[in-house]
Amino acid sequence: MNYPNCLKNLIESFKKLPGVGEKTAERYSYAIINNFEKEDSQFFSKSIQDVKEKLRKCDKCNNITESSICELCSDKRRNKKVICLVQDSKDIILFEKIGFFNGLYYVIEKLISPINGVGPEDINLEKLFKRIEDEKIEEVIIAIKPTIEGETTSLYIARMLEKKDVIVSKIAHGIPIGTDMEYLDPLTLELAIKDRKTF
Amino acid sequence: MNYPNCLKNLIESFKKLPGVGEKTAERYSYAIINNFEKEDSQFFSKSIQDVKEKLRKCDKCNNITESSICELCSDKRRNKKVICLVQDSKDIILFEKIGFFNGLYYVIEKLISPINGVGPEDINLEKLFKRIEDEKIEEVIIAIKPTIEGETTSLYIARMLEKKDVIVSKIAHGIPIGTDMEYLDPLTLELAIKDRKTF
Repeated sequence: MNYPNCLKNLIESFKKLPGVGEKTAERYSYAIINNFEKEDSQFFSKSIQDVKEKLRKCDKCNNITESSICELCSDKRRNKKVICLVQDSKDIILFEKIGFFNGLYYVIEKLISPINGVGPEDINLEKLFKRIEDEKIEEVIIAIKPTIEGETTSLYIARMLEKKDVIVSKIAHGIPIGTDMEYLDPLTLELAIKDRKTF
Repeated sequence: MNYPNCLKNLIESFKKLPGVGEKTAERYSYAIINNFEKEDSQFFSKSIQDVKEKLRKCDKCNNITESSICELCSDKRRNKKVICLVQDSKDIILFEKIGFFNGLYYVIEKLISPINGVGPEDINLEKLFKRIEDEKIEEVIIAIKPTIEGETTSLYIARMLEKKDVIVSKIAHGIPIGTDMEYLDPLTLELAIKDRKTF
């Protein structure tokens, strides 16, 4: 027996999600068939269309938004002198959940990765440069994950910003709070010692 | 910052799937935003609507189908004298993937579970009874999972079928192939000894 066509299609769609294989896709599909109310599934279906149709990039920072300027860029209470550079708009949510940072963001979207065909020219910093000049930004904090691609990209961006009249900083690397030291990788430990602080 | 509305809706929808929490729902949603082609997301969205609109229960066996009689019930090459009772139409796929069983199926949909308010009267066996009589079924194999609810339901169904002119059997319980004996639960081991076979 084959799955009915519409079920087969749904399973195929679920399998396109990250980390979802045949079994999980089947499980999700059956959940929709058996447990979802008709309204729930209509809502689900519409939400998928909506995110593709309504979401766009903020004209100023590349964050996802439903309008031309995102909620953060148009928020008057934020510190308009500091920009935090992140890889993905997902990272902004992470920072905002903590609530510690009150400045602006800029999403670079891609990391330099020659193996994936992404060169320095693919990192779009134009809007950032424009903003630094137009809005007299004082500091750019680079908050990109410390992988090889991330570090390369951070370094490249720092170089590009050297010529601008702006302080460039990088978030600190070191030992995460609540970690057992024995599970730490040597590089993190090395960085933690190198970047040690006096009391 | 809050998520844009349409993204919030999509995350909420994903969270209704089994085993999907906030983090995974976010991950899936961003995958649709970042990695799905427009056509993929339209296809996904339509598939969700389709399974709710097009799928129905087979008039004969409760299996999910796009027509009134499912593919299996209308397949002339199958053994029409044996019915395998399963809990869910998902189980049919499992059996069909093995390809060992060539008879018919019947989906009972629910298990007796007083704690969830499901009594024996909620187990719908009418179509099964009708089929046993109309089509002169010779054997009913009960293939329901061996939990308390499953065993109760199996026993109840076996009782109900006592009055019919049909052989009622149950799939064998015992030690799964390839298992280390030490990880087996005592009940399975007990059953395996009790139901031992001579060479």
